[in-house]
Amino acid sequence: MQVDIMNMDIITSAGDIKREKILGKTVVVIDMLRATSVITTAAANSCREVIPVLTIEDALELAKKYNGNCILGGERKAVKIEGFNCSNSPLEYTKELVENKSIILTTTNGTRAIKGCEGAKDIFIGCMLNALKLSEEIMKKGNDIVLVNAGTYDQFSMDDFICSGYIIDCILNITGRACDIELSDICKTAHYVYEMNKDIKGFIKNASHYKRIESLGLLADLEYCVQKSIIDVVPVYKDGVITA
Amino acid sequence: MQVDIMNMDIITSAGDIKREKILGKTVVVIDMLRATSVITTAAANSCREVIPVLTIEDALELAKKYNGNCILGGERKAVKIEGFNCSNSPLEYTKELVENKSIILTTTNGTRAIKGCEGAKDIFIGCMLNALKLSEEIMKKGNDIVLVNAGTYDQFSMDDFICSGYIIDCILNITGRACDIELSDICKTAHYVYEMNKDIKGFIKNASHYKRIESLGLLADLEYCVQKSIIDVVPVYKDGVITA
Repeated sequence: MQVDIMNMDIITSAGDIKREKILGKTVVVIDMLRATSVITTAAANSCREVIPVLTIEDALELAKKYNGNCILGGERKAVKIEGFNCSNSPLEYTKELVENKSIILTTTNGTRAIKGCEGAKDIFIGCMLNALKLSEEIMKKGNDIVLVNAGTYDQFSMDDFICSGYIIDCILNITGRACDIELSDICKTAHYVYEMNKDIKGFIKNASHYKRIESLGLLADLEYCVQKSIIDVVPVYKDGVITA
Repeated sequence: MQVDIMNMDIITSAGDIKREKILGKTVVVIDMLRATSVITTAAANSCREVIPVLTIEDALELAKKYNGNCILGGERKAVKIEGFNCSNSPLEYTKELVENKSIILTTTNGTRAIKGCEGAKDIFIGCMLNALKLSEEIMKKGNDIVLVNAGTYDQFSMDDFICSGYIIDCILNITGRACDIELSDICKTAHYVYEMNKDIKGFIKNASHYKRIESLGLLADLEYCVQKSIIDVVPVYKDGVITA
């Protein structure tokens, strides 16, 4: 433990990341529907690495350097990008496909949030799927914590918010007592929302994002992404690359 | 009505105000504990005007121009400023004291939020006390709405958030049907929190801010500020001055 009290805060969209809020802190990037669920799943399925990039052009350029020996994944407007191998569905990133492979990923909100957090001391990739293991890793660091919600097009997103509430719940359960962790008001609110909606889906059904998920036939993705702590892998973003 | 669908959003602290988010919109500034409750109360008690200023120096300078014929009000760290007439307690701004008077007000979060909203089409001052009347005025404008929570030292504040939820509830009750208003995810969350905590105080008791209120002996202020729609006055900020 480097500090006695760990302060915990939430940033509610990629557009709201400010350098002074993350500098020197343990940051968790959360885009549960679906980028960070994709990354966590791919890591659990033993991919070599995930390289987040901001633009389709960057992704194609980087793929050339790999001589095509990589998987191109991502989305624009929640839909697969032309010429890419995979969309932004975690269900596509099977062990069969990704084992020992490099994945180049570009998504609208998630990869932007990850790259926006450069400058933080540690950058973890978080989602419902790996929340418990993630919480253990966070506590080992002993630094102040910022949960960075990717959000949706620079807007607060209900799914990332309740996922933050669940991660806070995991952390409070680990510490056993809340006094080691000083929750900001927004953390308390996220935790409250989670405690009142432990099924997760009931709350997310009201999200703007949900309608789009539904209309695109992505309910199987949603069913997968709301599962709690089924993966014991915590991806880490460092020097431009995500590894387990 | 200038638009068929009115979009509604929340900004969660004075530090998060961005010009592009408020430009041309109907903005409501909310600092329920206590600046906007002070302004609303003073307006209800027929003060001539409230002039929000950022610094103590600005306040003293402006008071000279009034030849002392004004009331200096405000706080730093929730405490009255030396040489000022009133603190930031709404209970001090009685009719006896403020009727036909100009009030120069400087507070840590509220007055900053008000001045930060310059560029919006209309800037209303909102709190629990005037929420219903405020909601009627907002609906008459027919523009997109942004509830700007002053927050506390650039942080999300539970009290302003649940107050936003109550204002949203008033607006939805006026429209009768939610379809005229498109709530962003954060508005839906604030409304959810209000619906689950209609007593307000039960939720605010968990806020970081609350401890400070309590330790400073300001529970009477809190009791006053959580009252719902007891004032029918909606202060408007325009050209540097707030009037009813």
